[in-house]
Amino acid sequence: MTIQVLGYAAQNESSTLVPFKFERRATREDDVVIQVEYCGVCHSDLHMARNDWGFTQYPVVPGHEIVGRVTSVGGKVSKYKVGDLVGIGCMVDSCRTCSACQKDLEQYCEGGHTLTYGGIDRIDQRMTYGGYSQTLVCSEDFVLKVPENLDTKAVPPILCAGITTWSPLRHWNVGKGSKVAVVGLGGLGHMAIKLANALGAEVTLFTRSANKEQDAKSLGAHYVVLSTDEHQMQAAANQFDLIVDTVPYDHDLKPYIPTLALNGTIVLVGYLGDLSANSVPMIMGRRSIAGSVIGGIKETQELLNFCGEHNIVSEVEMIDMQNINDAYERMLKSDVKYRFVIDMQSMDKVV
Amino acid sequence: MTIQVLGYAAQNESSTLVPFKFERRATREDDVVIQVEYCGVCHSDLHMARNDWGFTQYPVVPGHEIVGRVTSVGGKVSKYKVGDLVGIGCMVDSCRTCSACQKDLEQYCEGGHTLTYGGIDRIDQRMTYGGYSQTLVCSEDFVLKVPENLDTKAVPPILCAGITTWSPLRHWNVGKGSKVAVVGLGGLGHMAIKLANALGAEVTLFTRSANKEQDAKSLGAHYVVLSTDEHQMQAAANQFDLIVDTVPYDHDLKPYIPTLALNGTIVLVGYLGDLSANSVPMIMGRRSIAGSVIGGIKETQELLNFCGEHNIVSEVEMIDMQNINDAYERMLKSDVKYRFVIDMQSMDKVV
Ligand SMILES: [Zn+2]
Ligand SMILES: [Zn+2]
Ligand SMILES: [Zn+2]
Ligand SMILES: [Zn+2]
Repeated sequence: MTIQVLGYAAQNESSTLVPFKFERRATREDDVVIQVEYCGVCHSDLHMARNDWGFTQYPVVPGHEIVGRVTSVGGKVSKYKVGDLVGIGCMVDSCRTCSACQKDLEQYCEGGHTLTYGGIDRIDQRMTYGGYSQTLVCSEDFVLKVPENLDTKAVPPILCAGITTWSPLRHWNVGKGSKVAVVGLGGLGHMAIKLANALGAEVTLFTRSANKEQDAKSLGAHYVVLSTDEHQMQAAANQFDLIVDTVPYDHDLKPYIPTLALNGTIVLVGYLGDLSANSVPMIMGRRSIAGSVIGGIKETQELLNFCGEHNIVSEVEMIDMQNINDAYERMLKSDVKYRFVIDMQSMDKVV
Repeated sequence: MTIQVLGYAAQNESSTLVPFKFERRATREDDVVIQVEYCGVCHSDLHMARNDWGFTQYPVVPGHEIVGRVTSVGGKVSKYKVGDLVGIGCMVDSCRTCSACQKDLEQYCEGGHTLTYGGIDRIDQRMTYGGYSQTLVCSEDFVLKVPENLDTKAVPPILCAGITTWSPLRHWNVGKGSKVAVVGLGGLGHMAIKLANALGAEVTLFTRSANKEQDAKSLGAHYVVLSTDEHQMQAAANQFDLIVDTVPYDHDLKPYIPTLALNGTIVLVGYLGDLSANSVPMIMGRRSIAGSVIGGIKETQELLNFCGEHNIVSEVEMIDMQNINDAYERMLKSDVKYRFVIDMQSMDKVV
């Protein structure tokens, strides 16, 4: 039996998000049904709603930082039971058989992972709808367990902003003794600082705004380097084992490469597009430029457990679903510290 | 007592190379004196002779692929004795104390390694002169042991072209089961093919010239992909763990990135300058662009030993010292398979 759901959708690329009634699929034997309690607002949501990447199919119900409670489970579900606090991030399925999936790297599935919204379900070929809605249905294999000790409303951004920065921190073996820099202090950047700090690294923020120093330090940065100050940039030369570059728009990488240590890597997690660099400092210091996208399911669970142990959540500003369009406008001005999260109880007031 | 030496030098950026008499330093206690038998001709020699990089000091005696025999040793030399067959590559010294030097990565010495030619000696501050000369004097710590079983005249290019490709092959753990591609079939590229093959990798050459297929395969390439053929490039998608890019001039990296496997790296070893790429396939496949320069002394010795065991040498065309200027002109037209080597006995005929 399908489930009637109320959500918020963009109906075309110039429309605001408005209430939208749709059906969730009838529960499959491996499905978990989740009542959404909180949903984070990611920049991708805005880009997809407005078709900034050119492949949006409408209507689109955004939202891939989803936390809620299990309300029912399919007959073969073994990992979750009714009442469990759970999360869903950017993926709801993958091919499960390719070499990437076999290595718990579903985010790099050779067949492409199934997006939480705006994707095509692998079984019924219907469009997927995201977390700006009351209810979600998802295979238990793509559902995460959320620690009960955390402030639940501040957990959702861990599922996209968090894992997007955690995965490179782990892949490049950040730990005690590592020197990590973060470029950009937004949703991703503030999580990168918290997580790198909790992993034991010495953390530096690169920023263009001198007024972000206090905030960065309160989040866990040990140093702040003003990237517009050539003197400070030169003083930062040869230092960092890893730079996590969260900037979502085109920007010059050249000033950052020389701040990498021998064998260091700058990993891009926020910007999709053409880039330019210079090979000289790369060759002369065996430095790398890399990319990384979200993280695998196993790794995301590892992150949630780590956050539970270290009591790490995102810094959030709560909004009602009805204010999502204003929130988008504020996001475009970077006017948020550091992530909007929708309180889905607000949906009760939507008719 | 200083040593009178005859070499070939460029006296300014527009001159040809001509005979040049100079002095080598009096032997220090850790020095080895070497009679040069063969010296490879590297592209760097030409760039330095002509001041293409803007920092050449004249006169410059090029040559950093040097093989010869020990003719005398300083009082505290323990590794070499008169008569030993030895080599010198691109470096003749480094600070020996920085963290890079401590890790046998003298090529990345934080104080800068001392170039074999056109560098400044760390002790007497005199200009270093390279292997286009009868005699060399060098600290034993930067002298390599050359296996006697190899064809000596074809060994010199191992000391620059060889180690430049070997170091990334080893750093990125190429071995049995690895898929390696090489971009460009010149001095570096032909060594990369031989070495990757001998390490057990499946080797592919990317080339713009269909007529290089037979040569590439005889060197050890299993496959050849025509980089100008979009169809072939698409068929090569998602394959390579490592691409060794030996192309020495500005070229578009974008077509190569999608041919990397998940976690794959394209490493630039030949091109110094601005580069452009696109972050999308990097992010979607955790792919990297890296740089690498020559290799450490310990690693170079490891390579020479490996070459001895696998009977690997360079493909060379022998020239007399007097023909160096013609050889440079031919190198500019890529008219050499694959490296010129100077037979230094030809110096006997120079008055
Ligand atoms: Zn997101
Ligand atoms: Zn897969
Ligand atoms: Zn060279
Ligand atoms: Zn050093």
